[in-house]
Order: sequence, then C-alpha cells, then structure tokens
Amino acid sequence: MLQEISEQPVVLERTIQNERGKLKKLGQLFQNRDIDLIVLAARGSSDNASLFGRYLLEITTGIPVSLSAPSIFTLYNSSLNLKRAVVIGVSQSGEGTDINTVLERAKESGAFTIGITNEEDSAMAQITDETLLIHAGREKSVAATKTYTGQMLHFYMLASVLGDRKIDFERVPHFSAQALQLKVNVEELVRRYVFMENCVVVGRGLNYGNSYELALKLMETCYVVAERFSSADFFHGPLAIVEKRFPAILFAPKGVTRQSSLDLLARLDELHADCLAITNDKSVARKSPHTLLLPEEIDEFLSPIPFIVPAQLFAALLAREKGIDPDAPRSLSKVTKTI
Amino acid sequence: MLQEISEQPVVLERTIQNERGKLKKLGQLFQNRDIDLIVLAARGSSDNASLFGRYLLEITTGIPVSLSAPSIFTLYNSSLNLKRAVVIGVSQSGEGTDINTVLERAKESGAFTIGITNEEDSAMAQITDETLLIHAGREKSVAATKTYTGQMLHFYMLASVLGDRKIDFERVPHFSAQALQLKVNVEELVRRYVFMENCVVVGRGLNYGNSYELALKLMETCYVVAERFSSADFFHGPLAIVEKRFPAILFAPKGVTRQSSLDLLARLDELHADCLAITNDKSVARKSPHTLLLPEEIDEFLSPIPFIVPAQLFAALLAREKGIDPDAPRSLSKVTKTI
Repeated sequence: MLQEISEQPVVLERTIQNERGKLKKLGQLFQNRDIDLIVLAARGSSDNASLFGRYLLEITTGIPVSLSAPSIFTLYNSSLNLKRAVVIGVSQSGEGTDINTVLERAKESGAFTIGITNEEDSAMAQITDETLLIHAGREKSVAATKTYTGQMLHFYMLASVLGDRKIDFERVPHFSAQALQLKVNVEELVRRYVFMENCVVVGRGLNYGNSYELALKLMETCYVVAERFSSADFFHGPLAIVEKRFPAILFAPKGVTRQSSLDLLARLDELHADCLAITNDKSVARKSPHTLLLPEEIDEFLSPIPFIVPAQLFAALLAREKGIDPDAPRSLSKVTKTI
Repeated sequence: MLQEISEQPVVLERTIQNERGKLKKLGQLFQNRDIDLIVLAARGSSDNASLFGRYLLEITTGIPVSLSAPSIFTLYNSSLNLKRAVVIGVSQSGEGTDINTVLERAKESGAFTIGITNEEDSAMAQITDETLLIHAGREKSVAATKTYTGQMLHFYMLASVLGDRKIDFERVPHFSAQALQLKVNVEELVRRYVFMENCVVVGRGLNYGNSYELALKLMETCYVVAERFSSADFFHGPLAIVEKRFPAILFAPKGVTRQSSLDLLARLDELHADCLAITNDKSVARKSPHTLLLPEEIDEFLSPIPFIVPAQLFAALLAREKGIDPDAPRSLSKVTKTI
C-alpha cells in the first residue's frame, strides 16, 4: 500500500500522456450529442471517486449527475429512460457484476457508456462504448490508492472536454508529489492515534468524496469505526456523537469551503473534540490543534487528489503503528462481485 | 419522541385523506409534461426519506433520480440544466436555507418544483409550484419520526401518479399500527444494548434509506457511533471493522432483498458478530440471533414505513435505558440552517 501510494505522481502523469488523445476525440463526439444526464455507477473506493466526479461534473458542465443505485436493475429488474444520458462505470478491476449490469442495461436504453478501469481486458471494457484506462500497473494492495486517484484524474479530463472550463489537470502529478513529502510528518503524527477506535471524517463539495475514502481506508486497514459526513450534514444530528476527545479529521482546503471548515472547527472546539485538519489554509491551520499542511498554491479546485495523499499515508502508517498489515485486511478480498 | 412515534398511523391516514386530491391533479398535470429527471433535495432525516424516494421513484416510473448536492449552487454558484426536471425539496420545517436555494435555482432553470413539508406557511411552500403537506401537527422532538414517515408516504403517493403501478399505500397506516405493537418486545430487547458504543446498520434497496435513518437516530438520541451501509457496499471494505460481538442491525424484509440478507447474516455469523434482524421473513429470523418480527403479510414494496417504526422505538427506548432524554440531545437544535 505504501509502495502504491508513492507511485501516484508517476501513474497520474502516465495516464495523462496515454489517454489525452482519446479524451480529445471523445470531446468531439460529445459536441454533436444532446446530453441531459450523467450517471455514475461504482462501488467501494470507485464510488468515492465518483462522489468527487459528481461534484466536479455538475460544477464544470451544468449537466445533472446521478450516482447509480445498481439494485434498481439487479434486484428490482426495472428499466430507466437513459436515452440522452452518458453512463460511466468506474471499477478498478472492471469485473463488478452489478456495475457491468448497469452498463449493459444503460446501453439497451440508448445511453452512451464509458468505463473507467485499470484493466484493459476486463468485462467492463468489452461492454462500454469507450474505455478510459488508468495506467497504474497492477494494484496489489486490497486498499485501493493509485487507482482511486487515477479515477479522479479521469473525471478532470472528462470535465475538461465536456465543459467549457480550462482545467489545469497537468499540475496534479506535481501537487501529488509535493503531498508525498508529508510522509515524515504523518509518520510522527500517527503515534498519537494508535488507540483510536472510532472517529469522524468530514469534507465538503469536491472533497466530500475524500471524506468517504479516508473513512473507508481507516475501516479497511486500521479497523477504526470511521463515520463520514459533509460538514453540512454533520450538524443535522451526527454532531451529538461528539464528546470530549472524540477524533475528527477534516479536509479543509483554501477556497470556497473555508468558512464551512472554520465554523465546524469552532463548534468542535466548543465540544472539546480532537481535531486534525488536512489543509493548506493558514487560518484553518491556526484553529486546528493538529494539522497536515499542504502547499498554499494548491487551489481548492485541484485539491482533491493531492489532499487524499496524506490521508492515504495516515491510514497505511496508522495500520503499521497498530500492528496491522494494511495489505492483508481481515475478512476482505480484492475483487468483490455483488449479485 | 415516543408520543410522536405512536401518532404515526393517524398522521399517515390524515395525510392520505387530505392530500390525495392534490396528488390526483398533479398526476394530470404531469401527463402533458416530458420529465426526464427527478431531483430530490434534502438534509438529515429528510435526506434519508429521499434516499428511499429515489429507489421508489426509479423502480415505479423509470425516470432517473438524482439526490441533489446543494453546495453546487450555494458554494460553487453553478447552474444546472434542469428544464425537463421535476425538483422536489423535502424538509420538515421548510426553512432549510440551502434546500430552498436549490428550489429557487431549479425554478429559474425551468424545472417544475414541489415541496414536501410539515409547515404550510414555510419559506419552502412560498417558493415551490406545488406543496405536499404532511399532516403531522407540530413535531416537537429534535429527532424526526412522524415527519420522516410522512415524507415517505408522499413518495408513494407521487409514485402512484407518476408511474403506472397501482400502489396500495392505503394499507400503510394499518401496517404501521401493527408495527407499533412491537413496543413491548423492543422494551425488553434494548436492555442488552445499554452498553453498546458503536454498531453498523445495514439495509438494501427500498430499505437502504432506513439504514441511514436508524443510524442517525442512534447517533442523535443514544450517542452511538452508528455506521450505515447497503449490504452490497458493506462487503467492499467496511466488513473489516466487524470483530467478535460487533453489533449489526439489519433491515431484512421478505422479498427481493432476502438472499442478500441471508448472505450477509451467514458472513456475520462466521465473524461472530452480534446481529439483530428487523424482519418478517421466517427464514431470515431463524438465521439471526436477535429479531424484531413484523407481520408476514407486509410486502417488501410497502415495508419501509412499517419497518422503521420498531427501529424508531429501539432508538427512543435505548436512549431512555442509557439515561439520555431522546427529546433533548446534546449539541443539537430542531431547525438547522445550512449556509
């Protein structure tokens, strides 16, 4: 897992170089198409990447996005009207049976289908009209890291051809390399979390998916009961679980979510919670007792990939500190085939 | 909270009687409209009711549904193309600032807007093209119960005019009254959970929203760190948190989700987890060490409202058993205005 985390800048760069031509052609194809809905279908970490993709695509394209509920097709055997939709399946292995069913049924309904996967020869790649490949090499760790950020990168590349906004995704590999330099800080920091049994992870907007992803990593690799919320939802009830010294981890980049982060930190401070902010905003860092500080130049819009890197390191190094092998979590296997 | 839980059959019946005429007219209006997307906008318990509504509407109408991310409008100031969409705001108070912003912006984009609320004179009711009222009387407890099931009922009534399927929602008040009779069983059962500090709640399909709602109730009223998952997602990582005696609560009605429930129970049994099934399926009940058994005649399609009733009782009575007043949870207020 640590090895695969460290490969991310290279994987991201390789994916940009190998896939940008395909994306350009896809953009030309979309110019003649009336798209009024984008559907994203995924499970696990891929679903967390899709939660990011949902915000990104709505913000940049103005096309509404729906996160698919596969059981509509698989359990309830219903059909959806998707004739003006683009349906995107996201899966590391490309072998998730239920996600592939969504893609097949969407195609029958007239949707244009895209697969985002790490496996060129997967079942998903056979089904979809177009396949966007993550060039991650094999991902061996059960806990997905380099394929998660690879999927996120593809959403940036898709957004840049579907919408009008110029997106500097070429800067993401460099930002991710900068984020990796926090490893020594994380190594030091995890020591105080070795007895953490539960926590809450909070993110908002483009970093909302990251809160799900860090929570999942903490569950998978550290066996921590980790809740995940948007800071907006957190005030609707879940805040009641926070007692003195309850651990809270925040994704709090500089930018539009700043005020929301400061409000939450103030409230958590009143409740004497134990806060860790992953941030590049000095005013946020000043209000948080613990921080992982990223370079200030990373704009909120490009923050989700570099911001998950120290979080991945946190999970992997905390697992090691707890005496758990993060590559062999109990009860899990790498490919999950849902029926 | 206990008082309001017990009012539900009456509230549901009153809501049917008072609103069915309005729904019929809405159905006629929709016959001349090309709807290719339904967007649901909500926070907290209302968002959990919407998660149910999402499955129900997709299954019965074939129209894709998207659960709105309000920050797209409020933080990122983006616009969505919603000209062929019906956008439904769901809010007990009708005063959620961000949800009302979504509705205003959707109206500007040409969407038809509907509010589902308990407050006739709320800001939401002023904004929307049509308001569907829950006739619950004032809801005093911070933990929503009768407005949650009232919102769910409105989704059944909407589904019956938007789709072709005949829906027997008139039976729901009776089923809910039957479910209330489990109170003595729940009173007995909660004694063994008094020291529970964390747990996982699992549901799937139409009962997926209920798993979020019970988890929220347990967080709000019992301060239990309660995770919520679909049984499909649970196998993607979170299963690793389950150790011997880890409490798991399942919504497991008779019907399409049965095999999925049995598979999960078998896996949890291997891990020596502590399972409680809310079910009306004898084969499921036989496989679960603890159960709350509802009448067999409740079809999976109509199960979500009666199935949440014993779960609400569980949260309220467990709070009392833990010495917590469920009507005055720490750190929370009834109306949350998100900016």
